[in-house]
Amino acid sequence: MNGAESLVKTLLASGIRTCFANPGTSEMHFVAALDRIPGMKCVLGLTESVVTGAADGYARMRDEPAATLLHCGPGLANGLSNLHNARRAQTPMVNIVGDQATYHRPLDPALTADTEGWARGVSAFTRTARSAATIGADAAAAVQAARTAPGRIATLIAPADTCWEEGGVVGEPLPMPTPSTVAPHKVAELARLLRGKEPCFMVVGGAGLRGKALDDAYRISAATGAKVMAQVFNGRVERGRGCPPIQKLPYNLDQALAAMAGSRHVILIGSVLPVAPFAYPNKPGHLFPDDATVHVFARPEEDIAQALAALADEIGAPALSLPVIAASTEIARGAISQEAFTRTLAALLPENAIVVDESVSFGRSFFNGLAGAVPHDWLQITGGAIGNGIPLATGAGVACPSRRVVSLQADGAGMFTVQGLWTQAREKLPVTTVVFSNRKYQILLGELANVGANPGRVALDMLDIGRPDINWVKMAEAMGVEAGRAETMDDFADLFRTANASSGPFLIELMT
Amino acid sequence: MNGAESLVKTLLASGIRTCFANPGTSEMHFVAALDRIPGMKCVLGLTESVVTGAADGYARMRDEPAATLLHCGPGLANGLSNLHNARRAQTPMVNIVGDQATYHRPLDPALTADTEGWARGVSAFTRTARSAATIGADAAAAVQAARTAPGRIATLIAPADTCWEEGGVVGEPLPMPTPSTVAPHKVAELARLLRGKEPCFMVVGGAGLRGKALDDAYRISAATGAKVMAQVFNGRVERGRGCPPIQKLPYNLDQALAAMAGSRHVILIGSVLPVAPFAYPNKPGHLFPDDATVHVFARPEEDIAQALAALADEIGAPALSLPVIAASTEIARGAISQEAFTRTLAALLPENAIVVDESVSFGRSFFNGLAGAVPHDWLQITGGAIGNGIPLATGAGVACPSRRVVSLQADGAGMFTVQGLWTQAREKLPVTTVVFSNRKYQILLGELANVGANPGRVALDMLDIGRPDINWVKMAEAMGVEAGRAETMDDFADLFRTANASSGPFLIELMT
Repeated sequence: MNGAESLVKTLLASGIRTCFANPGTSEMHFVAALDRIPGMKCVLGLTESVVTGAADGYARMRDEPAATLLHCGPGLANGLSNLHNARRAQTPMVNIVGDQATYHRPLDPALTADTEGWARGVSAFTRTARSAATIGADAAAAVQAARTAPGRIATLIAPADTCWEEGGVVGEPLPMPTPSTVAPHKVAELARLLRGKEPCFMVVGGAGLRGKALDDAYRISAATGAKVMAQVFNGRVERGRGCPPIQKLPYNLDQALAAMAGSRHVILIGSVLPVAPFAYPNKPGHLFPDDATVHVFARPEEDIAQALAALADEIGAPALSLPVIAASTEIARGAISQEAFTRTLAALLPENAIVVDESVSFGRSFFNGLAGAVPHDWLQITGGAIGNGIPLATGAGVACPSRRVVSLQADGAGMFTVQGLWTQAREKLPVTTVVFSNRKYQILLGELANVGANPGRVALDMLDIGRPDINWVKMAEAMGVEAGRAETMDDFADLFRTANASSGPFLIELMT
Repeated sequence: MNGAESLVKTLLASGIRTCFANPGTSEMHFVAALDRIPGMKCVLGLTESVVTGAADGYARMRDEPAATLLHCGPGLANGLSNLHNARRAQTPMVNIVGDQATYHRPLDPALTADTEGWARGVSAFTRTARSAATIGADAAAAVQAARTAPGRIATLIAPADTCWEEGGVVGEPLPMPTPSTVAPHKVAELARLLRGKEPCFMVVGGAGLRGKALDDAYRISAATGAKVMAQVFNGRVERGRGCPPIQKLPYNLDQALAAMAGSRHVILIGSVLPVAPFAYPNKPGHLFPDDATVHVFARPEEDIAQALAALADEIGAPALSLPVIAASTEIARGAISQEAFTRTLAALLPENAIVVDESVSFGRSFFNGLAGAVPHDWLQITGGAIGNGIPLATGAGVACPSRRVVSLQADGAGMFTVQGLWTQAREKLPVTTVVFSNRKYQILLGELANVGANPGRVALDMLDIGRPDINWVKMAEAMGVEAGRAETMDDFADLFRTANASSGPFLIELMT
């Protein structure tokens, strides 16, 4: 057994079943091993940002890591921006990065780069395999690191000779670390605070946005009057009828400040500190009032569900009682607008859909607007590195082939990773992509106005992606994805129904 | 004057006239400054790998750096693979990377990443600006570093507050460092060696592949009988009638070993050590015989042209006498083959063309095949990080709007940075792209065969990019580039003539 075979067998033994890949020369022994040893589904991406983003979407839906296969430092580099998003989503992932043979690297051939250095910025675990005899154990350690709560990026660099040499040993699967629970005294303290008179604001993230944990958070809020919101960026939220219609902290700084205004206590439950995505001159950096006290009730790596359940018990919160939200059944006609689109989407969303949101400026109302729709999962860009949507939708489609993925995609962000459409076509994934074609970096035009600039030709040329207009229908068709253009809401409704009835991918260019 | 304005004015004062850009929120003050201060041509790329690759192509043709504008760590990360190629091409470049405000970064907002850490792997100069008062001086130092021979990557990270604060000071342009010359005793020693009986092999890189320096290298070879070849990966070679028809060391390891077999002395003249691009089991790592002695006559950062001129003088090499290479005038008909394509290309290449080669497996014969064609410059992928071609062609087109760029592009590699076609359309660049559409990672099928594997379904699925086939005509048209498909050599000749007569970009999908 060579090193590559021990690596594949270790990944399989540790429960990795899917590998998103863009291989190169130094990975050929690994590819040959994947070919010989059954059990790993391999999915090709035409650029590494698709590979890593798809592995993120897969893991968000499966709650277990996929592997990626990347080619040397530059291949890893191409995948870093979506690894950054995955890190912010607390996604488990195991990257296998091929590299120069250990003894060849000192000669500095052309493709040699600082593979470890680039990996470290996104990885909780970075290791370069030293030999065929140990790469199996390295892989087992990488999977364990990836599965450590709340989910981490593990990167194993595999020099070519550690794959081709004989003497591979399959690594024993290592135990899955158990997240720590929140101490009873912290539960009692927080219950006292919430029962008190001072305004409390709970910010929830991670596992607190799904299933019973989300119900508990909502029950606690209802019982105590404390406000509750999801953090700004979330890997996955369970949503729609039957789920508490929790709101998210707005991305817009002024709106977020308004939402948290008057809070005396900010309680973090699996959430990061609520801060502005960027600093602005003469505006605060955090979203809560200066005189608020921040309480970390449960850190992201702790058992959020247990913490919320214990707190709900301590408070004696009544059973979940959800507000009645009128389900939209209205299919808008005529002119396209955010409001008309939101209503139509809410009316036509397929049962049990997976919604992927990288709509950026056009879609600020979608999350709340779908609160009364059929049950669905909501995935979003998490790290601000645009080009997350198409890959996430691709990975979610691989993870859940019997559910429909509705990928809500801003055009500028979509162009970063448009190659992902090809993988959707190859794998015949159930993905409906709606591209909001405004032919601008609309969010940046707003940001430029914020800095007081009245944009001239030079600035507009950097913020406007028309001239020439991108034809998204041809773009999709070029990669084997059926597509149509919607100039009105009527067009959209027709196309959206057609798309969702399809067994494969379909793209709708919505002219906004 | 705010920091951003001082930054723009410093870049202009230091001779930077072009900025390839993909900006984000943290760069809005810089964008506003570019808008207010005339003199900088700004070119938008729809993903950062296009931005950095275009800056590389620009600098290779202009012999001076362009700036790039990138958005935070993830934006830089997207551009790293083509920065890696640029570093290997010894390209001067100044990256301006926006980032979180200095005081906001500790709050770790979502887009915060290890910007400096990622920059270091490709940059000879990495600095994070500390204040508006000093960012001008930082920019001047960055330009000086970029211009230091033979050309380096300089990365200046500009936190948002160092741009928006008042108190900017324009940095004085710093002197351009003079490359050191080769000492006379080294010239005399090498002349003695070359006049001796032992077989010598000169490997030339950098400035040694252009103009009089290339002539001198060829003259020295002719006078002494020493073999001369270009290194495997070269940023730019002057080529065609009137230029010495120097060959390149082959990419293929066995062919390269054969080319250098029997050499007793290997003389590096602006070249890296000739090594295998990857290690292979039981094959040597360097391309020269084990018993050869390596002599570094001129390091890449030294004055290569001076070194070659001095050596030619010392030897008393006769005037340049070029072999007569029959110019191909044959326009092949019928079936498409590498050989037929090479002949047709040689016959129809536009005068003074810039050829960009990322043809990978299909194009191994192009370089030598064009030796008798009209004079042209030859640019190629230099660091092995595929996705270099379309961006290089884009940058070369911006640099030299009155010359025709002929971009020879493998399909698999082309998909990594296909977004660059849009920039070609927007800027109406004179680029003819020929996509070799074999719908495979052909080079990897060869590499897989080398490791002795008989590929099964899993391996083929990772090396085959058909199913679905990519329609390159629609792909180009989707981004505003006129396009046509060639099924025969006749089609190709017609389309190539049409393309080269156009004032803007044109793409030909050649079905190989």
